[in-house]
Amino acid sequence: MDGKRVIGVDLGGTKILTGIIDRDGGVARRREHPTPVGSQEELLAGLDGSVEELLGDDIAALGFGIPSPVDQRTGRALQAVNIPLRADIDFRSRMAGRFGLPVGIENDANAATYAEFHFGAGREARSMVMLTLGTGCGGGAVVDGHLFRGWAEFGHMVIVYDGLPCQGTCTGRGHLEPYVTGVAATKLAQEAFGPAVDAHRLVRLASEGDEVARDILDGIGRHLGAGIGSLVNIFNPELVVIGGGFAAAGDFVLDPAREIVRREALAHAGDDLRIVRAELGTAAGLIGAGLVAFDALD
Amino acid sequence: MDGKRVIGVDLGGTKILTGIIDRDGGVARRREHPTPVGSQEELLAGLDGSVEELLGDDIAALGFGIPSPVDQRTGRALQAVNIPLRADIDFRSRMAGRFGLPVGIENDANAATYAEFHFGAGREARSMVMLTLGTGCGGGAVVDGHLFRGWAEFGHMVIVYDGLPCQGTCTGRGHLEPYVTGVAATKLAQEAFGPAVDAHRLVRLASEGDEVARDILDGIGRHLGAGIGSLVNIFNPELVVIGGGFAAAGDFVLDPAREIVRREALAHAGDDLRIVRAELGTAAGLIGAGLVAFDALD
Repeated sequence: MDGKRVIGVDLGGTKILTGIIDRDGGVARRREHPTPVGSQEELLAGLDGSVEELLGDDIAALGFGIPSPVDQRTGRALQAVNIPLRADIDFRSRMAGRFGLPVGIENDANAATYAEFHFGAGREARSMVMLTLGTGCGGGAVVDGHLFRGWAEFGHMVIVYDGLPCQGTCTGRGHLEPYVTGVAATKLAQEAFGPAVDAHRLVRLASEGDEVARDILDGIGRHLGAGIGSLVNIFNPELVVIGGGFAAAGDFVLDPAREIVRREALAHAGDDLRIVRAELGTAAGLIGAGLVAFDALD
Repeated sequence: MDGKRVIGVDLGGTKILTGIIDRDGGVARRREHPTPVGSQEELLAGLDGSVEELLGDDIAALGFGIPSPVDQRTGRALQAVNIPLRADIDFRSRMAGRFGLPVGIENDANAATYAEFHFGAGREARSMVMLTLGTGCGGGAVVDGHLFRGWAEFGHMVIVYDGLPCQGTCTGRGHLEPYVTGVAATKLAQEAFGPAVDAHRLVRLASEGDEVARDILDGIGRHLGAGIGSLVNIFNPELVVIGGGFAAAGDFVLDPAREIVRREALAHAGDDLRIVRAELGTAAGLIGAGLVAFDALD
Protein backbone atom coordinates (compact mmCIF):
# COMPACT_ATOMS: atom_id res chain seq x y z
CA MET A 1 0.00 0.00 0.00
CA ASP A 2 1.55 3.28 -1.13
CA GLY A 3 -1.35 5.37 0.12
CA LYS A 4 -2.08 6.77 -3.32
CA ARG A 5 -5.68 7.38 -4.20
CA VAL A 6 -7.47 8.08 -7.45
CA ILE A 7 -10.80 9.41 -8.63
CA GLY A 8 -13.05 6.92 -10.37
CA VAL A 9 -15.81 8.15 -12.67
CA ASP A 10 -18.55 5.81 -13.86
CA LEU A 11 -20.22 7.68 -16.69
CA GLY A 12 -23.69 6.33 -17.38
CA GLY A 13 -26.55 7.40 -19.61
CA THR A 14 -28.48 8.87 -16.68
CA LYS A 15 -25.97 9.31 -13.85
CA ILE A 16 -22.34 10.17 -13.26
CA LEU A 17 -21.06 8.20 -10.26
CA THR A 18 -17.79 9.36 -8.70
CA GLY A 19 -15.69 8.45 -5.71
CA ILE A 20 -12.17 8.34 -4.37
CA ILE A 21 -10.76 4.84 -4.72
CA ASP A 22 -7.81 3.30 -2.90
CA ARG A 23 -5.71 0.31 -3.96
CA ASP A 24 -7.85 -2.04 -1.90
CA GLY A 25 -10.96 -1.07 -3.82
CA GLY A 26 -12.27 1.06 -0.99
CA VAL A 27 -14.58 3.92 -2.00
CA ALA A 28 -14.70 7.23 -0.16
CA ARG A 29 -16.74 10.39 -0.81
CA ARG A 30 -19.13 8.74 -3.24
CA ARG A 31 -21.16 11.22 -5.32
CA GLU A 32 -23.91 11.02 -7.94
CA HIS A 33 -24.93 13.63 -10.49
CA PRO A 34 -27.36 13.49 -13.40
CA THR A 35 -25.58 13.08 -16.73
CA PRO A 36 -25.88 16.24 -18.84
CA VAL A 37 -26.94 14.96 -22.25
CA GLY A 38 -27.79 18.23 -24.01
CA SER A 39 -24.48 18.50 -25.81
CA GLN A 40 -20.89 17.27 -25.66
CA GLU A 41 -19.85 20.58 -24.11
CA GLU A 42 -22.38 20.22 -21.31
CA LEU A 43 -21.37 16.61 -20.77
CA LEU A 44 -17.68 17.51 -20.47
CA ALA A 45 -18.50 20.41 -18.14
CA GLY A 46 -20.53 18.04 -15.99
CA LEU A 47 -17.65 15.58 -15.84
CA ASP A 48 -15.21 18.37 -14.99
CA GLY A 49 -17.42 19.47 -12.13
CA SER A 50 -17.78 15.95 -10.82
CA VAL A 51 -14.01 15.50 -10.78
CA GLU A 52 -13.25 18.93 -9.29
CA GLU A 53 -15.54 18.21 -6.39
CA LEU A 54 -13.22 15.39 -5.29
CA LEU A 55 -9.82 16.72 -6.36
CA GLY A 56 -7.12 17.14 -3.76
CA ASP A 57 -3.39 16.83 -3.26
CA ASP A 58 -3.70 13.11 -2.56
CA ILE A 59 -5.27 12.33 -5.93
CA ALA A 60 -2.73 10.64 -8.23
CA ALA A 61 -4.80 9.80 -11.30
CA LEU A 62 -8.25 9.76 -12.86
CA GLY A 63 -10.13 6.80 -14.34
CA PHE A 64 -13.26 6.89 -16.47
CA GLY A 65 -15.67 4.08 -17.30
CA ILE A 66 -17.49 5.01 -20.50
CA PRO A 67 -20.56 3.41 -22.10
CA SER A 68 -18.83 2.93 -25.44
CA PRO A 69 -16.16 0.80 -27.03
CA VAL A 70 -12.90 2.60 -26.36
CA ASP A 71 -9.90 2.87 -28.66
CA GLN A 72 -6.99 2.66 -26.23
CA ARG A 73 -4.51 3.83 -28.80
CA THR A 74 -6.25 7.10 -29.63
CA GLY A 75 -8.07 7.63 -26.32
CA ARG A 76 -11.45 7.92 -28.00
CA ALA A 77 -14.97 6.68 -27.25
CA LEU A 78 -15.81 5.15 -30.58
CA GLN A 79 -19.51 4.55 -30.35
CA ALA A 80 -21.20 6.14 -27.34
CA VAL A 81 -24.92 5.59 -27.77
CA ASN A 82 -26.77 7.15 -24.85
CA ILE A 83 -24.47 10.12 -24.22
CA PRO A 84 -23.33 12.95 -26.53
CA LEU A 85 -19.66 11.97 -26.55
CA ARG A 86 -18.28 11.97 -30.07
CA ALA A 87 -15.47 9.87 -31.47
CA ASP A 88 -13.73 12.96 -32.82
CA ILE A 89 -12.33 14.03 -29.47
CA ASP A 90 -9.42 12.37 -27.69
CA PHE A 91 -11.25 12.08 -24.40
CA ARG A 92 -8.22 10.79 -22.50
CA SER A 93 -5.91 13.64 -23.57
CA ARG A 94 -8.69 16.15 -22.98
CA MET A 95 -9.01 15.02 -19.37
CA ALA A 96 -5.27 14.63 -18.81
CA GLY A 97 -4.72 18.15 -20.11
CA ARG A 98 -7.59 19.60 -18.10
CA PHE A 99 -6.44 18.15 -14.78
CA GLY A 100 -2.70 17.57 -15.25
CA LEU A 101 -2.98 13.98 -14.04
CA PRO A 102 -2.56 10.55 -15.62
CA VAL A 103 -5.90 9.42 -17.02
CA GLY A 104 -7.14 5.92 -17.84
CA ILE A 105 -10.31 5.24 -19.80
CA GLU A 106 -12.11 1.99 -20.34
CA ASN A 107 -15.42 0.65 -21.52
CA ASP A 108 -17.78 0.62 -18.54
CA ALA A 109 -18.47 -3.11 -18.67
CA ASN A 110 -14.74 -3.84 -18.90
CA ALA A 111 -14.20 -1.62 -15.86
CA ALA A 112 -16.91 -3.44 -13.90
CA THR A 113 -15.33 -6.76 -14.90
CA TYR A 114 -11.96 -5.59 -13.65
CA ALA A 115 -13.47 -4.61 -10.31
CA GLU A 116 -15.28 -7.93 -9.85
CA PHE A 117 -12.05 -9.70 -10.73
CA HIS A 118 -9.98 -7.88 -8.12
CA PHE A 119 -12.46 -7.32 -5.32
CA GLY A 120 -15.69 -9.17 -6.07
CA ALA A 121 -16.84 -12.58 -7.29
CA GLY A 122 -13.60 -13.18 -9.19
CA ARG A 123 -11.06 -12.35 -6.49
CA GLU A 124 -9.87 -15.98 -6.27
CA ALA A 125 -9.79 -16.50 -10.05
CA ARG A 126 -7.05 -16.07 -12.65
CA SER A 127 -9.43 -15.86 -15.60
CA MET A 128 -13.06 -14.92 -15.84
CA VAL A 129 -15.76 -13.69 -18.13
CA MET A 130 -18.43 -11.28 -16.99
CA LEU A 131 -21.79 -10.51 -18.55
CA THR A 132 -23.96 -7.65 -17.35
CA LEU A 133 -27.67 -8.01 -17.94
CA GLY A 134 -29.46 -4.71 -17.64
CA THR A 135 -31.07 -2.51 -20.25
CA GLY A 136 -28.40 -3.86 -22.56
CA CYS A 137 -25.96 -6.72 -22.31
CA GLY A 138 -22.33 -5.81 -21.75
CA GLY A 139 -19.32 -7.88 -21.03
CA GLY A 140 -15.69 -8.12 -20.17
CA ALA A 141 -13.01 -10.73 -19.64
CA VAL A 142 -9.83 -11.27 -17.69
CA VAL A 143 -7.32 -13.66 -19.24
CA ASP A 144 -4.60 -14.97 -16.96
CA GLY A 145 -4.79 -11.92 -14.72
CA HIS A 146 -4.94 -9.31 -17.47
CA LEU A 147 -8.00 -7.32 -18.51
CA PHE A 148 -8.88 -8.37 -22.06
CA ARG A 149 -8.47 -5.30 -24.22
CA GLY A 150 -10.48 -6.32 -27.24
CA TRP A 151 -13.98 -4.90 -27.44
CA ALA A 152 -15.63 -7.67 -25.46
CA GLU A 153 -19.04 -6.63 -26.76
CA PHE A 154 -20.44 -10.02 -25.76
CA GLY A 155 -24.03 -8.85 -26.06
CA HIS A 156 -23.39 -8.64 -29.79
CA MET A 157 -22.36 -12.21 -30.46
CA VAL A 158 -24.71 -13.93 -32.88
CA ILE A 159 -26.44 -16.81 -31.09
CA VAL A 160 -29.53 -17.15 -33.31
CA TYR A 161 -28.69 -16.97 -36.99
CA ASP A 162 -31.09 -14.48 -38.67
CA GLY A 163 -32.83 -14.03 -35.31
CA LEU A 164 -34.29 -11.05 -33.44
CA PRO A 165 -33.09 -7.58 -34.45
CA CYS A 166 -31.03 -5.50 -32.04
CA GLN A 167 -32.28 -2.14 -30.84
CA GLY A 168 -30.66 1.23 -31.46
CA THR A 169 -27.82 1.64 -33.90
CA CYS A 170 -26.88 -2.04 -34.10
CA THR A 171 -28.12 -3.60 -37.33
CA GLY A 172 -27.42 -7.16 -36.21
CA ARG A 173 -29.78 -10.12 -36.07
CA GLY A 174 -29.94 -12.75 -33.37
CA HIS A 175 -27.37 -11.21 -31.07
CA LEU A 176 -27.33 -12.31 -27.44
CA GLU A 177 -28.62 -8.95 -26.18
CA PRO A 178 -32.25 -9.08 -27.34
CA TYR A 179 -32.68 -12.50 -25.70
CA VAL A 180 -31.23 -12.03 -22.23
CA THR A 181 -31.65 -8.50 -20.85
CA GLY A 182 -34.17 -7.12 -18.42
CA VAL A 183 -35.74 -5.37 -21.39
CA ALA A 184 -36.12 -8.71 -23.16
CA ALA A 185 -37.65 -10.23 -20.03
CA THR A 186 -40.09 -7.36 -19.69
CA LYS A 187 -41.17 -7.78 -23.30
CA LEU A 188 -41.82 -11.49 -22.88
CA ALA A 189 -43.56 -10.90 -19.55
CA GLN A 190 -45.90 -8.34 -21.06
CA GLU A 191 -46.81 -10.67 -23.91
CA ALA A 192 -47.74 -13.33 -21.34
CA PHE A 193 -49.24 -11.29 -18.48
CA GLY A 194 -50.22 -7.88 -19.84
CA PRO A 195 -48.67 -4.42 -19.96
CA ALA A 196 -48.26 -3.83 -16.19
CA VAL A 197 -45.72 -6.62 -15.75
CA ASP A 198 -41.97 -5.95 -15.96
CA ALA A 199 -38.86 -8.06 -15.42
CA HIS A 200 -38.90 -7.59 -11.65
CA ARG A 201 -42.52 -8.66 -11.44
CA LEU A 202 -41.76 -11.62 -13.69
CA VAL A 203 -39.08 -12.84 -11.29
CA ARG A 204 -41.47 -12.35 -8.38
CA LEU A 205 -44.12 -14.42 -10.14
CA ALA A 206 -41.59 -17.17 -10.79
CA SER A 207 -40.53 -17.19 -7.14
CA GLU A 208 -44.21 -17.56 -6.22
CA GLY A 209 -44.38 -20.68 -8.36
CA ASP A 210 -45.98 -19.39 -11.56
CA GLU A 211 -45.12 -21.90 -14.30
CA VAL A 212 -45.50 -19.47 -17.19
CA ALA A 213 -43.10 -17.05 -15.54
CA ARG A 214 -40.65 -19.86 -14.85
CA ASP A 215 -40.83 -21.03 -18.47
CA ILE A 216 -40.04 -17.53 -19.70
CA LEU A 217 -37.02 -17.26 -17.42
CA ASP A 218 -35.96 -20.78 -18.41
CA GLY A 219 -35.94 -19.78 -22.09
CA ILE A 220 -33.94 -16.67 -21.32
CA GLY A 221 -31.48 -18.75 -19.33
CA ARG A 222 -31.04 -21.25 -22.15
CA HIS A 223 -30.19 -18.48 -24.59
CA LEU A 224 -27.83 -17.00 -22.02
CA GLY A 225 -26.23 -20.44 -21.75
CA ALA A 226 -25.61 -20.53 -25.50
CA GLY A 227 -23.77 -17.23 -25.23
CA ILE A 228 -21.79 -18.32 -22.19
CA GLY A 229 -20.93 -21.59 -23.93
CA SER A 230 -19.43 -19.64 -26.83
CA LEU A 231 -17.43 -17.49 -24.43
CA VAL A 232 -16.16 -20.50 -22.53
CA ASN A 233 -14.85 -22.04 -25.75
CA ILE A 234 -13.14 -18.76 -26.64
CA PHE A 235 -11.74 -17.65 -23.26
CA ASN A 236 -11.59 -20.84 -21.18
CA PRO A 237 -12.42 -18.95 -17.96
CA GLU A 238 -12.55 -20.55 -14.51
CA LEU A 239 -15.51 -18.42 -13.67
CA VAL A 240 -18.42 -16.63 -15.33
CA VAL A 241 -19.84 -13.70 -13.37
CA ILE A 242 -23.33 -12.39 -14.12
CA GLY A 243 -24.02 -8.80 -13.11
CA GLY A 244 -26.49 -6.05 -13.91
CA GLY A 245 -29.99 -5.53 -12.58
CA PHE A 246 -31.50 -8.58 -14.25
CA ALA A 247 -28.98 -10.86 -12.48
CA ALA A 248 -31.58 -10.64 -9.71
CA ALA A 249 -33.43 -13.39 -11.59
CA GLY A 250 -30.79 -15.69 -10.08
CA ASP A 251 -31.10 -19.42 -10.53
CA PHE A 252 -34.37 -19.15 -12.47
CA VAL A 253 -32.08 -18.00 -15.26
CA LEU A 254 -28.70 -19.36 -14.19
CA ASP A 255 -29.75 -23.01 -13.75
CA PRO A 256 -30.98 -23.43 -17.35
CA ALA A 257 -27.91 -21.45 -18.47
CA ARG A 258 -25.66 -23.93 -16.64
CA GLU A 259 -27.44 -26.84 -18.36
CA ILE A 260 -26.86 -25.38 -21.81
CA VAL A 261 -23.28 -24.42 -21.01
CA ARG A 262 -22.51 -28.05 -20.12
CA ARG A 263 -23.82 -29.00 -23.57
CA GLU A 264 -22.07 -26.26 -25.54
CA ALA A 265 -18.71 -26.03 -23.78
CA LEU A 266 -15.84 -28.25 -24.87
CA ALA A 267 -15.34 -30.85 -22.17
CA HIS A 268 -12.32 -29.55 -20.34
CA ALA A 269 -13.54 -25.98 -20.45
CA GLY A 270 -16.97 -26.72 -19.06
CA ASP A 271 -16.14 -29.31 -16.41
CA ASP A 272 -15.01 -27.09 -13.58
CA LEU A 273 -16.66 -23.87 -14.65
CA ARG A 274 -18.62 -21.90 -12.09
CA ILE A 275 -21.36 -19.43 -13.05
CA VAL A 276 -22.10 -17.01 -10.21
CA ARG A 277 -23.68 -13.64 -9.54
CA ALA A 278 -21.62 -10.49 -9.27
CA GLU A 279 -20.90 -9.20 -5.76
CA LEU A 280 -20.12 -5.50 -6.06
CA GLY A 281 -23.49 -4.35 -7.37
CA THR A 282 -23.69 -0.84 -8.76
CA ALA A 283 -20.26 0.04 -7.32
CA ALA A 284 -18.45 -2.27 -9.74
CA GLY A 285 -18.19 0.32 -12.50
CA LEU A 286 -16.93 2.99 -10.13
CA ILE A 287 -14.32 0.76 -8.49
CA GLY A 288 -13.27 -0.50 -11.92
CA ALA A 289 -12.79 3.08 -13.10
CA GLY A 290 -10.48 3.51 -10.12
CA LEU A 291 -8.48 0.42 -11.12
CA VAL A 292 -8.13 1.84 -14.60
CA ALA A 293 -6.74 5.02 -13.04
CA PHE A 294 -4.18 3.01 -11.06
CA ASP A 295 -3.20 1.22 -14.28
CA ALA A 296 -2.60 4.62 -15.90
CA LEU A 297 -0.37 5.51 -12.98
CA ASP A 298 1.71 2.35 -12.77
CA MET B 1 19.10 -11.41 -36.28
CA ASP B 2 21.02 -13.45 -33.73
CA GLY B 3 21.36 -16.42 -36.04
CA LYS B 4 19.57 -18.73 -33.66
CA ARG B 5 17.36 -21.38 -35.17
CA VAL B 6 14.70 -23.67 -33.77
CA ILE B 7 12.86 -26.82 -34.75
CA GLY B 8 9.17 -26.43 -35.45
CA VAL B 9 6.89 -29.46 -35.24
CA ASP B 10 3.35 -29.33 -36.63
CA LEU B 11 1.67 -32.41 -35.20
CA GLY B 12 -1.40 -33.35 -37.21
CA GLY B 13 -3.79 -36.27 -37.17
CA THR B 14 -2.16 -37.85 -40.21
CA LYS B 15 1.24 -36.18 -40.61
CA ILE B 16 4.07 -34.76 -38.52
CA LEU B 17 5.60 -31.79 -40.35
CA THR B 18 8.99 -30.59 -39.17
CA GLY B 19 11.53 -28.02 -40.21
CA ILE B 20 14.25 -25.71 -38.98
CA ILE B 21 12.88 -22.21 -38.60
CA ASP B 22 14.80 -18.95 -38.39
CA ARG B 23 13.64 -15.64 -36.92
CA ASP B 24 12.51 -14.43 -40.34
CA GLY B 25 10.13 -17.36 -40.70
CA GLY B 26 12.37 -19.13 -43.16
CA VAL B 27 12.03 -22.92 -43.26
CA ALA B 28 14.95 -25.25 -43.94
CA ARG B 29 15.15 -29.05 -44.08
CA ARG B 30 11.40 -29.56 -44.18
CA ARG B 31 10.34 -33.17 -43.40
CA GLU B 32 7.06 -35.09 -43.28
CA HIS B 33 6.31 -38.35 -41.47
CA PRO B 34 3.06 -40.22 -40.90
CA THR B 35 1.68 -39.68 -37.40
CA PRO B 36 1.89 -42.89 -35.31
CA VAL B 37 -1.55 -43.19 -33.79
CA GLY B 38 -1.36 -46.70 -32.30
CA SER B 39 -0.54 -45.52 -28.79
CA GLN B 40 0.84 -42.56 -26.90
CA GLU B 41 4.22 -44.29 -26.64
CA GLU B 42 4.41 -44.74 -30.42
CA LEU B 43 3.32 -41.16 -30.94
CA LEU B 44 6.01 -39.81 -28.62
CA ALA B 45 8.63 -42.06 -30.21
CA GLY B 46 7.61 -40.78 -33.61
CA LEU B 47 7.91 -37.18 -32.44
CA ASP B 48 11.31 -37.90 -30.88
CA GLY B 49 12.54 -39.35 -34.15
CA SER B 50 11.24 -36.40 -36.14
CA VAL B 51 13.08 -33.99 -33.85
CA GLU B 52 16.33 -36.00 -33.70
CA GLU B 53 16.53 -36.00 -37.47
CA LEU B 54 16.95 -32.20 -37.42
CA LEU B 55 18.85 -31.67 -34.17
CA GLY B 56 22.20 -29.95 -34.27
CA ASP B 57 24.39 -27.55 -32.32
CA ASP B 58 22.64 -24.56 -33.86
CA ILE B 59 19.18 -25.53 -32.55
CA ALA B 60 18.19 -23.34 -29.62
CA ALA B 61 14.63 -24.49 -28.84
CA LEU B 62 11.73 -26.68 -29.93
CA GLY B 63 8.16 -25.67 -30.69
CA PHE B 64 5.14 -27.91 -31.11
CA GLY B 65 1.77 -27.14 -32.64
CA ILE B 66 -0.75 -29.63 -31.25
CA PRO B 67 -4.32 -30.37 -32.39
CA SER B 68 -5.77 -29.79 -28.94
CA PRO B 69 -6.51 -26.98 -26.52
CA VAL B 70 -3.31 -26.51 -24.53
CA ASP B 71 -2.99 -25.61 -20.87
CA GLN B 72 0.01 -23.30 -20.84
CA ARG B 73 0.37 -23.49 -17.10
CA THR B 74 0.69 -27.27 -16.90
CA GLY B 75 2.11 -27.94 -20.37
CA ARG B 76 -0.65 -30.39 -21.24
CA ALA B 77 -2.77 -31.13 -24.30
CA LEU B 78 -6.19 -31.10 -22.73
CA GLN B 79 -8.38 -32.59 -25.39
CA ALA B 80 -6.52 -34.10 -28.32
CA VAL B 81 -9.11 -35.79 -30.51
CA ASN B 82 -7.39 -37.38 -33.48
CA ILE B 83 -4.12 -38.39 -31.82
CA PRO B 84 -3.41 -40.58 -28.77
CA LEU B 85 -1.98 -37.80 -26.63
CA ARG B 86 -3.45 -37.84 -23.16
CA ALA B 87 -3.99 -34.93 -20.80
CA ASP B 88 -2.19 -36.79 -18.01
CA ILE B 89 1.30 -36.14 -19.34
CA ASP B 90 3.08 -32.81 -19.15
CA PHE B 91 4.02 -32.82 -22.81
CA ARG B 92 6.18 -29.71 -22.58
CA SER B 93 8.31 -30.97 -19.68
CA ARG B 94 8.57 -34.39 -21.30
CA MET B 95 10.06 -32.83 -24.43
CA ALA B 96 12.23 -30.35 -22.54
CA GLY B 97 13.64 -33.20 -20.46
CA ARG B 98 14.15 -35.46 -23.43
CA PHE B 99 16.10 -32.92 -25.48
CA GLY B 100 17.50 -30.52 -22.88
CA LEU B 101 16.16 -27.50 -24.75
CA PRO B 102 13.51 -24.85 -24.07
CA VAL B 103 10.18 -26.07 -25.43
CA GLY B 104 7.08 -24.12 -26.41
CA ILE B 105 3.73 -25.74 -27.13
CA GLU B 106 0.62 -24.21 -28.60
CA ASN B 107 -2.67 -25.19 -30.14
CA ASP B 108 -2.07 -25.78 -33.85
CA ALA B 109 -4.56 -23.16 -35.04
CA ASN B 110 -3.09 -20.60 -32.64
CA ALA B 111 0.35 -21.41 -34.03
CA ALA B 112 -0.86 -20.96 -37.61
CA THR B 113 -2.45 -17.66 -36.62
CA TYR B 114 0.81 -16.49 -35.11
CA ALA B 115 2.66 -17.34 -38.32
CA GLU B 116 0.16 -15.55 -40.56
CA PHE B 117 0.39 -12.55 -38.23
CA HIS B 118 4.17 -12.30 -38.43
CA PHE B 119 4.92 -13.47 -41.94
CA GLY B 120 1.66 -13.90 -43.87
CA ALA B 121 -1.59 -12.06 -44.47
CA GLY B 122 -1.37 -10.23 -41.13
CA ARG B 123 2.16 -8.91 -41.32
CA GLU B 124 0.98 -5.28 -41.54
CA ALA B 125 -1.67 -5.68 -38.82
CA ARG B 126 -1.60 -5.13 -35.06
CA SER B 127 -4.66 -7.26 -34.37
CA MET B 128 -6.27 -10.06 -36.32
CA VAL B 129 -8.53 -13.03 -36.08
CA MET B 130 -7.93 -16.19 -38.09
CA LEU B 131 -10.34 -18.98 -38.91
CA THR B 132 -9.18 -22.20 -40.54
CA LEU B 133 -11.77 -24.06 -42.56
CA GLY B 134 -10.75 -27.63 -43.20
CA THR B 135 -12.09 -30.87 -41.78
CA GLY B 136 -12.86 -28.86 -38.68
CA CYS B 137 -12.95 -25.16 -37.96
CA GLY B 138 -10.12 -23.80 -35.84
CA GLY B 139 -9.15 -20.32 -34.91
CA GLY B 140 -6.76 -17.96 -33.27
CA ALA B 141 -6.39 -14.28 -32.54
CA VAL B 142 -3.72 -11.67 -32.05
CA VAL B 143 -4.65 -8.72 -29.85
CA ASP B 144 -2.43 -5.65 -30.10
CA GLY B 145 0.56 -7.71 -31.18
CA HIS B 146 0.14 -10.53 -28.65
CA LEU B 147 -1.11 -14.03 -29.40
CA PHE B 148 -4.43 -14.47 -27.59
CA ARG B 149 -3.90 -17.21 -25.04
CA GLY B 150 -7.49 -18.17 -24.34
CA TRP B 151 -8.75 -21.28 -26.12
CA ALA B 152 -9.88 -19.48 -29.25
CA GLU B 153 -12.00 -22.48 -30.25
CA PHE B 154 -13.95 -20.28 -32.63
CA GLY B 155 -15.46 -23.25 -34.45
CA HIS B 156 -17.39 -23.91 -31.26
CA MET B 157 -19.19 -20.62 -30.90
CA VAL B 158 -22.96 -21.06 -31.02
CA ILE B 159 -24.32 -19.28 -34.08
CA VAL B 160 -27.61 -21.19 -34.53
CA TYR B 161 -29.41 -21.71 -31.23
CA ASP B 162 -30.42 -25.41 -30.97
CA GLY B 163 -28.98 -25.96 -34.46
CA LEU B 164 -26.93 -28.73 -36.09
CA PRO B 165 -25.04 -31.10 -33.78
CA CYS B 166 -21.25 -31.11 -33.78
CA GLN B 167 -19.33 -34.24 -34.69
CA GLY B 168 -17.02 -36.22 -32.45
CA THR B 169 -16.81 -35.55 -28.75
CA CYS B 170 -18.44 -32.12 -28.82
CA THR B 171 -22.03 -32.28 -27.59
CA GLY B 172 -22.87 -28.76 -28.76
CA ARG B 173 -25.65 -27.62 -31.06
CA GLY B 174 -25.46 -24.97 -33.74
CA HIS B 175 -21.76 -24.30 -33.44
CA LEU B 176 -20.01 -22.56 -36.32
CA GLU B 177 -18.08 -25.69 -37.31
CA PRO B 178 -20.86 -27.83 -38.82
CA TYR B 179 -21.89 -24.93 -41.07
CA VAL B 180 -18.64 -23.73 -42.59
CA THR B 181 -16.06 -26.49 -43.07
CA GLY B 182 -15.10 -28.42 -46.15
CA VAL B 183 -16.91 -31.38 -44.58
CA ALA B 184 -20.07 -29.27 -44.27
CA ALA B 185 -19.71 -28.18 -47.88
CA THR B 186 -19.25 -31.77 -49.06
CA LYS B 187 -22.38 -32.82 -47.19
CA LEU B 188 -24.49 -30.09 -48.76
CA ALA B 189 -22.96 -30.76 -52.18
CA GLN B 190 -23.81 -34.45 -51.98
CA GLU B 191 -27.39 -33.69 -51.00
CA ALA B 192 -27.70 -31.49 -54.08
CA PHE B 193 -25.57 -33.29 -56.66
CA GLY B 194 -25.10 -36.88 -55.52
CA PRO B 195 -22.43 -38.87 -53.70
CA ALA B 196 -19.50 -38.26 -56.05
CA VAL B 197 -19.36 -34.53 -55.38
CA ASP B 198 -17.12 -33.06 -52.69
CA ALA B 199 -16.25 -29.55 -51.56
CA HIS B 200 -13.59 -29.11 -54.26
CA ARG B 201 -15.99 -30.15 -56.96
CA LEU B 202 -18.65 -27.86 -55.51
CA VAL B 203 -16.32 -24.88 -55.82
CA ARG B 204 -15.48 -25.92 -59.36
CA LEU B 205 -19.17 -26.10 -60.24
CA ALA B 206 -19.72 -22.64 -58.76
CA SER B 207 -16.83 -21.22 -60.77
CA GLU B 208 -18.41 -22.72 -63.89
CA GLY B 209 -21.58 -20.77 -63.12
CA ASP B 210 -23.80 -23.42 -61.52
CA GLU B 211 -26.46 -21.55 -59.54
CA VAL B 212 -27.19 -24.36 -57.11
CA ALA B 213 -23.52 -24.64 -56.22
CA ARG B 214 -23.29 -20.88 -55.81
CA ASP B 215 -26.33 -20.85 -53.52
CA ILE B 216 -24.78 -23.52 -51.31
CA LEU B 217 -21.54 -21.57 -51.00
CA ASP B 218 -23.52 -18.38 -50.41
CA GLY B 219 -25.32 -20.02 -47.47
CA ILE B 220 -22.03 -21.26 -46.04
CA GLY B 221 -20.57 -17.79 -46.40
CA ARG B 222 -23.51 -16.17 -44.62
CA HIS B 223 -23.10 -18.49 -41.65
CA LEU B 224 -19.37 -17.81 -41.68
CA GLY B 225 -20.21 -14.11 -41.64
CA ALA B 226 -22.33 -14.55 -38.52
CA GLY B 227 -19.36 -16.16 -36.78
CA ILE B 228 -16.94 -13.50 -38.00
CA GLY B 229 -19.37 -10.78 -36.90
CA SER B 230 -19.34 -12.19 -33.37
CA LEU B 231 -15.55 -12.32 -33.39
CA VAL B 232 -15.29 -8.75 -34.64
CA ASN B 233 -17.47 -7.52 -31.78
CA ILE B 234 -15.33 -9.44 -29.30
CA PHE B 235 -11.82 -8.81 -30.63
CA ASN B 236 -12.14 -5.68 -32.79
CA PRO B 237 -9.49 -6.94 -35.24
CA GLU B 238 -8.24 -4.93 -38.21
CA LEU B 239 -8.13 -8.07 -40.25
CA VAL B 240 -9.79 -11.47 -40.49
CA VAL B 241 -7.72 -14.16 -42.19
CA ILE B 242 -9.37 -17.29 -43.58
CA GLY B 243 -7.14 -20.33 -43.95
CA GLY B 244 -7.50 -24.07 -44.32
CA GLY B 245 -8.26 -26.11 -47.41
CA PHE B 246 -11.79 -24.84 -47.84
CA ALA B 247 -10.54 -21.23 -48.03
CA ALA B 248 -10.06 -22.20 -51.68
CA ALA B 249 -13.77 -21.41 -52.12
CA GLY B 250 -12.61 -17.78 -52.04
CA ASP B 251 -15.11 -15.04 -52.77
CA PHE B 252 -17.97 -17.48 -53.38
CA VAL B 253 -17.90 -17.80 -49.59
CA LEU B 254 -16.13 -14.60 -48.53
CA ASP B 255 -18.41 -12.13 -50.35
CA PRO B 256 -21.60 -13.29 -48.58
CA ALA B 257 -19.57 -13.47 -45.36
CA ARG B 258 -18.55 -9.83 -45.83
CA GLU B 259 -22.18 -8.85 -46.36
CA ILE B 260 -23.29 -10.48 -43.11
CA VAL B 261 -20.31 -9.12 -41.19
CA ARG B 262 -21.32 -5.59 -42.19
CA ARG B 263 -24.75 -6.31 -40.71
CA GLU B 264 -23.56 -8.01 -37.52
CA ALA B 265 -20.49 -5.96 -36.61
CA LEU B 266 -20.82 -2.85 -34.48
CA ALA B 267 -20.26 0.11 -36.72
CA HIS B 268 -16.73 1.14 -35.87
CA ALA B 269 -15.53 -2.43 -35.74
CA GLY B 270 -16.90 -3.39 -39.12
CA ASP B 271 -16.17 -0.23 -41.11
CA ASP B 272 -12.53 -0.77 -41.96
CA LEU B 273 -12.36 -4.51 -41.51
CA ARG B 274 -10.71 -6.60 -44.19
CA ILE B 275 -11.45 -10.29 -44.69
CA VAL B 276 -8.71 -11.99 -46.69
CA ARG B 277 -7.32 -15.43 -47.45
CA ALA B 278 -4.30 -16.79 -45.61
CA GLU B 279 -0.96 -16.63 -47.44
CA LEU B 280 1.29 -19.26 -45.90
CA GLY B 281 -0.76 -22.32 -46.83
CA THR B 282 0.17 -25.59 -45.15
CA ALA B 283 3.44 -24.12 -43.84
CA ALA B 284 1.62 -21.80 -41.40
CA GLY B 285 1.41 -24.39 -38.63
CA LEU B 286 5.08 -25.31 -38.97
CA ILE B 287 6.31 -21.72 -39.01
CA GLY B 288 4.01 -20.92 -36.10
CA ALA B 289 5.46 -23.81 -34.12
CA GLY B 290 8.87 -22.23 -34.73
CA LEU B 291 7.63 -18.87 -33.42
CA VAL B 292 6.36 -20.61 -30.31
CA ALA B 293 9.84 -22.07 -29.87
CA PHE B 294 11.42 -18.61 -30.14
CA ASP B 295 8.93 -17.37 -27.53
CA ALA B 296 10.07 -20.16 -25.21
CA LEU B 297 13.63 -18.99 -25.75
CA ASP B 298 13.16 -15.26 -25.25
